[in-house]
Amino acid sequence: MSIYQAPLRDMQFVMFEVFNLEEELKQLPAHAETNRELIDQVLEEAGKFASEVLFPLNQPGDAEGCHYDQATKSVTTPKGFKEAYQKFVEGGWAALACDPKYGGQGLPIVVNNAFYEMLNSANQAWTMYPGLAHGAYECIRAHGSTEQQQAYLPKLVSGEWVGTMCLTEAHAGTDLGLLRTKAEPQADGSYLITGNKIFISGGEQDLAENIVHLVLARLPDAPLGTKGISLFIVPKFLPKEDGSLGERNPIFCGAIEHKMGIRASATCQMNLDGAQGWLLGEPNKGLAAMFVMMNAARLGVGMQGLGLTEVAYQNAVVYAKDRQQSRSPSAHKPNQAADVIIAHPDVRRMLLTARALAEGGRALATFIALQIDKELNHPDETIRKDAEDLVALLTPVVKAFLTDNGWIATSEAMQVFGGHGYIAEWGVEQYVRDSRINMIYEGTNTIQSLDLLGRKILLDNGAKLKKFGKMVQDFVEEYGTEEAMQEFVNPLADIGEKVTKLTMEIGMKAMQNPDEAGAAAVPYLRVLGHLVFAYFFARMAKIALDKQDSGDDFYKAKLHTARFYFARLLPETAMLIRQARSGAQNLLAMEASLF
Amino acid sequence: MSIYQAPLRDMQFVMFEVFNLEEELKQLPAHAETNRELIDQVLEEAGKFASEVLFPLNQPGDAEGCHYDQATKSVTTPKGFKEAYQKFVEGGWAALACDPKYGGQGLPIVVNNAFYEMLNSANQAWTMYPGLAHGAYECIRAHGSTEQQQAYLPKLVSGEWVGTMCLTEAHAGTDLGLLRTKAEPQADGSYLITGNKIFISGGEQDLAENIVHLVLARLPDAPLGTKGISLFIVPKFLPKEDGSLGERNPIFCGAIEHKMGIRASATCQMNLDGAQGWLLGEPNKGLAAMFVMMNAARLGVGMQGLGLTEVAYQNAVVYAKDRQQSRSPSAHKPNQAADVIIAHPDVRRMLLTARALAEGGRALATFIALQIDKELNHPDETIRKDAEDLVALLTPVVKAFLTDNGWIATSEAMQVFGGHGYIAEWGVEQYVRDSRINMIYEGTNTIQSLDLLGRKILLDNGAKLKKFGKMVQDFVEEYGTEEAMQEFVNPLADIGEKVTKLTMEIGMKAMQNPDEAGAAAVPYLRVLGHLVFAYFFARMAKIALDKQDSGDDFYKAKLHTARFYFARLLPETAMLIRQARSGAQNLLAMEASLF
Repeated sequence: MSIYQAPLRDMQFVMFEVFNLEEELKQLPAHAETNRELIDQVLEEAGKFASEVLFPLNQPGDAEGCHYDQATKSVTTPKGFKEAYQKFVEGGWAALACDPKYGGQGLPIVVNNAFYEMLNSANQAWTMYPGLAHGAYECIRAHGSTEQQQAYLPKLVSGEWVGTMCLTEAHAGTDLGLLRTKAEPQADGSYLITGNKIFISGGEQDLAENIVHLVLARLPDAPLGTKGISLFIVPKFLPKEDGSLGERNPIFCGAIEHKMGIRASATCQMNLDGAQGWLLGEPNKGLAAMFVMMNAARLGVGMQGLGLTEVAYQNAVVYAKDRQQSRSPSAHKPNQAADVIIAHPDVRRMLLTARALAEGGRALATFIALQIDKELNHPDETIRKDAEDLVALLTPVVKAFLTDNGWIATSEAMQVFGGHGYIAEWGVEQYVRDSRINMIYEGTNTIQSLDLLGRKILLDNGAKLKKFGKMVQDFVEEYGTEEAMQEFVNPLADIGEKVTKLTMEIGMKAMQNPDEAGAAAVPYLRVLGHLVFAYFFARMAKIALDKQDSGDDFYKAKLHTARFYFARLLPETAMLIRQARSGAQNLLAMEASLF
Repeated sequence: MSIYQAPLRDMQFVMFEVFNLEEELKQLPAHAETNRELIDQVLEEAGKFASEVLFPLNQPGDAEGCHYDQATKSVTTPKGFKEAYQKFVEGGWAALACDPKYGGQGLPIVVNNAFYEMLNSANQAWTMYPGLAHGAYECIRAHGSTEQQQAYLPKLVSGEWVGTMCLTEAHAGTDLGLLRTKAEPQADGSYLITGNKIFISGGEQDLAENIVHLVLARLPDAPLGTKGISLFIVPKFLPKEDGSLGERNPIFCGAIEHKMGIRASATCQMNLDGAQGWLLGEPNKGLAAMFVMMNAARLGVGMQGLGLTEVAYQNAVVYAKDRQQSRSPSAHKPNQAADVIIAHPDVRRMLLTARALAEGGRALATFIALQIDKELNHPDETIRKDAEDLVALLTPVVKAFLTDNGWIATSEAMQVFGGHGYIAEWGVEQYVRDSRINMIYEGTNTIQSLDLLGRKILLDNGAKLKKFGKMVQDFVEEYGTEEAMQEFVNPLADIGEKVTKLTMEIGMKAMQNPDEAGAAAVPYLRVLGHLVFAYFFARMAKIALDKQDSGDDFYKAKLHTARFYFARLLPETAMLIRQARSGAQNLLAMEASLF
């Protein structure tokens, strides 16, 4: 009963009209040949794969869940998942943005990212499996030895093998420094790894013939805490020289979790009982190596939030245009007992909230993905560094802001359905349940906020933030006197100044008491998210204003959505700034025993 | 693994210290004998029933769900539900606040309401069954003939029979005026009722021997819309003269829904195939009669939001005091690798959010319940009218504000658990899923907002609102010069003035265009909710300030929570007021086809 269509037009608008993607890619030698025609084709095919292959499996997959067999310690994914994965591999989709050196198609990240938005709209649980494989690919590519790269990357690129991140232990989640899994060096240079991991997405499954686990563990006599963690490659089956599968490695799934959502994604307890592994990167520097994977994963989780925002919006619109209840005071159709509910102002508030969060999120996600392409490929070092700084700054914003927004948007979309939204049949309650994990995993949104405010801004004396601020200022300068742009430029300039002031205030307070940063971080991140959205909506509005008389209603709709954003969503900053300024005392004064 | 303890101390504080319940009850002839000792005893026993009998069934009930048997069209509730219901009946709990004339215990609503908070904390799904029976009791008591009252009320009061509200049809949810179920008059004065109802909570179940369905249907030649709806009593088994069960009435359950939450509450599709029914109240005035039940039910849904807020808070606190992750900058214990997470500022922000929403909600719920007791029982007509006005004003606020808050609080509590919050084992994800329905049923929160702003405030020229405003003003006058109260009185006075101004502004705009009310209603309701919370927190803070040196830490904790509320939650009004003032244009300008 539910629907999904890839929002190709909006993706193309953001890529080619807002961010001039064709011009940008011409500056990058690796992508200079990637023109709009090719990207349009890829996006169109990607949209078909998402909506035709994956989307029909989403509701049934949730209802069925994964199956765990105690005897064989194996996991079976829901009906159709394996076949869909075969199509994914056959279509070459796993290789889309991978290095041609290992069999990849070498397309830019910005295209792959749009593809992942679609996959997540269509089926977040399914998308977890290839998504984590792509993270393993990036980590081995960045930190693996030539031998490791040759052994693992072609198989990950083709999709024949998938990957996992084995980080969490029962007593060590946010705080990986506490982990206890041990790695004992062997004479042949490998390690025997023993320990128990939990919450391992895709730790066991039946989609691919082999699983490349990346496992955090401690070497003997490693320092305590995060400085004593190393990263290991622990394949499910030990690969032979010729790439064929050898012995089964003793890393087994002991159970799968029963979860609120993403029920078709197997969340595994993994037991390593002397599993053979190989050090990836340097000893005791595993966390840094893993961060390559985690940063990609954080961007990936942001795309999950965005994907669910989009699909929930689409379904709510279909319902709101069809469902007739009550009479609209202003738009009543006299021949009808009731009007379609899209006529009612508050239904529109809910729809436009989800719509604006999707459009703002897509602009931000496209921007950061393009910056990653520039960071990786631009010939000019200064531009690479600028891009790297913007990626570092905005990664926690993409992860936390877009996933908080996914929770807000899916819930608003569900509310449009009334009681029908609460029953499984219509599919929208699944989006709400699925979206909730995105605020938690790959570093909770609190952790993202602390990373943003503490590491990315305060420790950096605001240098990265100033780079983004400069873009905002330039825009305000350029369009500040244009009459039609006043409604967008003025509030943008205003929130820009407020962010500057707020950042300085918190910085001063945090120097006296580091808990002041912790007390302000979560509202601060959302304020910055709004600055980013306001900036992109203003840029989008400029283009839409110029083209509103083109006869293409797309630009009219874009203008309406931008106006809605400034009128109804940006005002959240009035609350957030007060919360962020209110300080640590209102949180810390109460003794713990009084809770 | 989850816990629940009835918050007796906080209930007693609100009842006896904030609202002087003993003095108030002495003014009401029906309750003049109900002293604190009796109430304390009832609350204590109620707390035991909730935590010992119902709470252990909550997680298993959710996991098992209800069972529907197609052959017999019967519903079986989860294991233990029936036995718990027996204990409920045997303990006389169904009769707690019922009229002694029909076997009730005649306790005030304010006590019954506290009881329902506990029941909902312990097991919202189970509580739906007796909760709806109580609504049927109130409706028949208010509108039934003497004969109907004698036939049904004693059985509902004892709990031997339960009740339902059969309102919704597939095409008629929010808009009951569209309903099609038909009632044909018979020679004996009864009616034969034919139609299909959906979303009927407890429409079929195995807890009680009979079910008293209250069914909305149309008489032949009834006017279109809401003015042509009549209310009927349609018992599952036709009662004989002596009260024993007669023939099975053809009102059958055709299916039960698979839902996001409250999975142990049977949500039934009910098919009436010439079921025999009796008119309750006057022809074509069924909706007005049903409103007695709906107002009680709306207050009841508010208690569901509050109950889940409380139990989610309690469980998050236990986890936060036990779970050790990361080091607190300010409170690190040197002998530990990590600190309990309650040391971290943002964990406290989440905990205090849930705590403040529970405490504010409990004050509001207790206040409105006491007003209902006064409305029903006070000898002075002016006081009865004032109480009635406050109940009318605050009912939509209790329903919508407390259920929105329940969604916020359960989600924050879940976030405290990190990944453990997302798996079923810890119980907290169920609170999130269960709480989501509360924003939808018994009139969506949008409908509550329209009722508040349109009917209760604008149509009334603000008279009811002024009565509440007078209480706020009096408090501000009385404590406005007290130094220690400045931090509470000043922001209270400020939000009071803002509400007055906002109400007038919207009223002026709505006279030009009724869509302006619809466009402002949802944020407006939350603004008013905050005014109410700010007022009650200020009153509670006054008492806590006076007693903070009493050696009882309860008052210290209350002060901290009040300060947190003013610093971190009240600022939501800065956002809400801007949204409410932003007008209808940003919602309505976009053509429906552009969505």
